[in-house]
Amino acid sequence: MNNISNTQKPLGRTKIKVGFITISDRAARGEYEDIGGPAMQDWIKNALLSPYEVDSIIIEDEQDLIEKTMIDFADNRDCNLILSTGGTGPTTRDVTPEATHNVCERIFDGFAEQMRNVSLRTVPTAILSRQTAGTRGNSLIINLPGKPAAIAVCLGAVFLAVPKCLELLDNSNIQIDLDFVEQEFE
Amino acid sequence: MNNISNTQKPLGRTKIKVGFITISDRAARGEYEDIGGPAMQDWIKNALLSPYEVDSIIIEDEQDLIEKTMIDFADNRDCNLILSTGGTGPTTRDVTPEATHNVCERIFDGFAEQMRNVSLRTVPTAILSRQTAGTRGNSLIINLPGKPAAIAVCLGAVFLAVPKCLELLDNSNIQIDLDFVEQEFE
Amino acid sequence: MNNISNTQKPLGRTKIKVGFITISDRAARGEYEDIGGPAMQDWIKNALLSPYEVDSIIIEDEQDLIEKTMIDFADNRDCNLILSTGGTGPTTRDVTPEATHNVCERIFDGFAEQMRNVSLRTVPTAILSRQTAGTRGNSLIINLPGKPAAIAVCLGAVFLAVPKCLELLDNSNIQIDLDFVEQEFE
Repeated sequence: MNNISNTQKPLGRTKIKVGFITISDRAARGEYEDIGGPAMQDWIKNALLSPYEVDSIIIEDEQDLIEKTMIDFADNRDCNLILSTGGTGPTTRDVTPEATHNVCERIFDGFAEQMRNVSLRTVPTAILSRQTAGTRGNSLIINLPGKPAAIAVCLGAVFLAVPKCLELLDNSNIQIDLDFVEQEFE
Repeated sequence: MNNISNTQKPLGRTKIKVGFITISDRAARGEYEDIGGPAMQDWIKNALLSPYEVDSIIIEDEQDLIEKTMIDFADNRDCNLILSTGGTGPTTRDVTPEATHNVCERIFDGFAEQMRNVSLRTVPTAILSRQTAGTRGNSLIINLPGKPAAIAVCLGAVFLAVPKCLELLDNSNIQIDLDFVEQEFE
Repeated sequence: MNNISNTQKPLGRTKIKVGFITISDRAARGEYEDIGGPAMQDWIKNALLSPYEVDSIIIEDEQDLIEKTMIDFADNRDCNLILSTGGTGPTTRDVTPEATHNVCERIFDGFAEQMRNVSLRTVPTAILSRQTAGTRGNSLIINLPGKPAAIAVCLGAVFLAVPKCLELLDNSNIQIDLDFVEQEFE
């Protein structure tokens, strides 16, 4: 709240940077077209009215690599918001939540709960999702599922809280399209 | 998903094994009839259409013993699904969730959330339940409460996701009675 | 349940002690009137029919200090119920949940879930709340938000379970005003 006295924080931004990380062995090896990444990017294009820059990457389901990429997007590329898709299921190759827990200083259980709660209205297996969210420095990292339809449901479930979170983290002041987001939230 | 290429997984089973663990000092000492165990077994008999084998045991509320039993059921007895009843409340003798956390490689918060959410519709004290669920190797372990009525509510709250989870874990292909399970889920 | 045989527990109390901890840099320095503390105290006065003693304090958002205060309220001042307000948001000065995790032996995720679930009906940013609850010895500690309206929503969301929890912890037998609490729970 008392951002004015916190000299370590950069000045608030009206133009933010959003990082998109697709986590998929097959997409990274080119055996499979990345559909999660474009689905996230399209959703954000509809939701964000403020200008923003984009960074994006497709990587394999390797925990070390996921952690390094999240750290790079947060610490070096200065992304305010980092969205990942993939790697949140129950198989042993699904390690995105573990990586996210390791790189985040704060975990926000409310994001995971709300994404599961809303998804469960239509998909009983949403209970198996281990996706999480948290902050590293001034960056908010949110795990999303792999399927485009599920990505839209999950972003709709949580996005109304994102502007306030970015504001609290580094005084960013972004505008979102409430009609679009609330329709997704329903 | 890509189970075909995962050579460490056993072949998918259509006949699974279900382990039932009753955790209760008094039931283990014979001072009290085990009612949680039969309640779990009856529910599963109604829900599972596929053939399955059963292992069951009654043990005291000792964390070491609970952990050893869960490990034995998962690693040696090869149970795909392990259900426990009892030991999830707030008293110091309630240690089932701690044991489950210790033996599982993965915790699935969605099970706990959904069991509490559904239970809370009728029982405000369901908020006190610390029951959890997770996987150890290819076994899914789910904690259930002690009372038969609460066991039915909790299994109904999560069981629609169990076949998919077992399929993802070791390619098992089980059939459930959707009419029965959905009626319990309501 | 089997409290009778548990000789380490004190005799059940019909008169309990409630500790109120306001956690706020500005309120502690006198720059800001404490409104969270009185809001908690008023709510409890309406909800509790049984007699109770009160301890209260206003402290800064310092994790060490929060932990020491919670330990003092639980171990030395013998508070059955300890309510904190403030310090549960996403900024780096918000450390109440971390302190609570450190001093509690048991965390009850159901409290956090239910407070967020109920708050989310009206406030989308409730997803950012990291407030938690747990037990230290026979004391139940519950984090609450800073704003009086949000305090009422959160206490209403969980309070029906509090008497049973205190009963299980040390055999306390308290009466609450069900009309008031259920109206708050809605």
